[in-house]
Amino acid sequence: MATTVQPSPAETATRTTQSQAYGVANSQSPIEPMTIERRALRPEDVAIKITHCGICHSDLHMAHNDWGMSVYPMVPGHEIVGVVTGTGSAVTKFKVGDRAAVGCLVDSDLTCEHCMAGHEQFCPNWVMTYGGKDLQDGSVTYGGYSDHVVVRQEFVCRLPASLDISRAAPLLCAGITTYSPLRKFGVGPGTKVGIAGLGGLGHMGVKLAAAMGADVTMITTSPEKGQDARELGAHHVLISTDQAAMDAAAEHFDFILNTIPVTHDVAPYLNLLKPNGVMVIVGAIDMLQGVHGGALAMRNRVIAGSLIGGLPETQEMLDFCAEHNVHPEVEHIGPAQINEAWDRMVKGDVRYRFVIDMAKTEGAA
Amino acid sequence: MATTVQPSPAETATRTTQSQAYGVANSQSPIEPMTIERRALRPEDVAIKITHCGICHSDLHMAHNDWGMSVYPMVPGHEIVGVVTGTGSAVTKFKVGDRAAVGCLVDSDLTCEHCMAGHEQFCPNWVMTYGGKDLQDGSVTYGGYSDHVVVRQEFVCRLPASLDISRAAPLLCAGITTYSPLRKFGVGPGTKVGIAGLGGLGHMGVKLAAAMGADVTMITTSPEKGQDARELGAHHVLISTDQAAMDAAAEHFDFILNTIPVTHDVAPYLNLLKPNGVMVIVGAIDMLQGVHGGALAMRNRVIAGSLIGGLPETQEMLDFCAEHNVHPEVEHIGPAQINEAWDRMVKGDVRYRFVIDMAKTEGAA
Repeated sequence: MATTVQPSPAETATRTTQSQAYGVANSQSPIEPMTIERRALRPEDVAIKITHCGICHSDLHMAHNDWGMSVYPMVPGHEIVGVVTGTGSAVTKFKVGDRAAVGCLVDSDLTCEHCMAGHEQFCPNWVMTYGGKDLQDGSVTYGGYSDHVVVRQEFVCRLPASLDISRAAPLLCAGITTYSPLRKFGVGPGTKVGIAGLGGLGHMGVKLAAAMGADVTMITTSPEKGQDARELGAHHVLISTDQAAMDAAAEHFDFILNTIPVTHDVAPYLNLLKPNGVMVIVGAIDMLQGVHGGALAMRNRVIAGSLIGGLPETQEMLDFCAEHNVHPEVEHIGPAQINEAWDRMVKGDVRYRFVIDMAKTEGAA
Repeated sequence: MATTVQPSPAETATRTTQSQAYGVANSQSPIEPMTIERRALRPEDVAIKITHCGICHSDLHMAHNDWGMSVYPMVPGHEIVGVVTGTGSAVTKFKVGDRAAVGCLVDSDLTCEHCMAGHEQFCPNWVMTYGGKDLQDGSVTYGGYSDHVVVRQEFVCRLPASLDISRAAPLLCAGITTYSPLRKFGVGPGTKVGIAGLGGLGHMGVKLAAAMGADVTMITTSPEKGQDARELGAHHVLISTDQAAMDAAAEHFDFILNTIPVTHDVAPYLNLLKPNGVMVIVGAIDMLQGVHGGALAMRNRVIAGSLIGGLPETQEMLDFCAEHNVHPEVEHIGPAQINEAWDRMVKGDVRYRFVIDMAKTEGAA
């Protein structure tokens, strides 16, 4: 494999740099080491030494071109934390040595109505952290499975001091994806919340809803996962294959966060919602089965979708997690174990998020 | 047919009364005159001489037992306006001669969380205006296709003086069904609202959204209906079969009121919603086709249902309509024309709501 030396701050600021990365050459290839180039710092750019990057299931979908939008070679990774190693001449938000975090987007036009509202994820010109196209030079963006990254300061969050940097990375996607709908729909003390599905998203949903003061129920097919969810902060468990229990829970919940990652019949979950209750779908980027209009209308029920969050809300989420000591449950791997981790993720064999420790070299390719 | 004489206030208060009604004997029978009994006034009851009753499409579904919940004989009608002719000993809200209005429900337990929140339509013990079961004596309720009705005062609304009583009846179902979701989701000045489908519900949606100050677009397959909608207050027309126009309107609307009364693919309408936009289904009490989770998630879109409204909101709607001079467009018929009106309603041949004028006797059976 190619080896690189971490550039000095002065170097980073004045020339392009070589980055040791881990990516895929095409939709069939495994992860392999590759050297990529990071741009010289523009005035507003921040260079970040990546200490950890989370592995999101969408990395695998993107690597396999499941959504028909992939560009190769691809360096995945949009749950990035690290330390600032260089700053462009106009950077005011960070200085060298600061802890920093980057999520799913690295640029947008900053002028449209969505950007002005702090919802950069809806900007028609948003740039994905990997597989996107840089707005200034048209180059393809590369993600966080790499040793460093260059991102404009507006898209870099501050990582609060009380968050453990080794565990924080999944907050940048799994965290904000679950935090945003919980906030939008007013989850808090007195709210009865159900979390359907216990994976990377579901486990953050349990932790965040509990930290917000809600009464949290894990809804799962598996009693074992129910027990795990209790350890994460869930107050109750509802086994979705127990029809009597599901009937007894009819109209119980104000809010259900549905993290089930595959197509499914949402009707049994809708039936659990109170009048005016809300179910947010964050897992199934897939066709959902049809529902009966009456199941919505007769109880003023709501089905909604939610996509990560904008930069202000992502910072708010990090600050909330710091204040409430909310950390993802992670399993650390080194860069050499990414392929193995992807295989295990497909089987659901992870509690609950793999995090690549970029400094972990044992078994490295 | 049997004939009855309208009872005097004193009589109404002390004994059961015979009411000339128009109902169905079974799920196959046409509307025919029938005599029913109205209860003697309980302390909290109000007797109302019905001047007008609207014809809702759900009357036909109920008459035909399409929803499997019908009880026969059935006297339909839940869009009722009239004049108070008698009051029970404990009635404080009305006096003889007051104008009054009754909608889709005539009782509930008044103690559950839903009743306490003013959402009596979600009370587990709510009593439908017709085909329901009285909470005190178990008798079947009969609706507004009749000359008078007895209802407890909590379920009788005041009909403001500036509303034309001959046109107001459809507000009690079509009006509140459209008003409630428009209010819940904050429609007002600056909001871009689409109304899909132009029938009894859709035409009220256009009028109410326009009266709330929104920018209103009629979404229809028919240019003729588009023109009609403009006359009702719509500012724009979007022809849903014009793919170029639909593409150009992508992400245009904050809110869509979907009044299409049959199952359909909601995806083309979802695509019209801005990020965080809301589509409320009020027409299709039927299976909806499945939607892609991505169409919801990628733009934080919301699909919701809505069922009439509670009593406080129904009164608020009547007051709003009085203040803004919002009246349904109606076609008056006499009791003898109900069967014909039902046939025409099935064909969509009504602009936009039939109202039975109980005093209109020409051609009476």
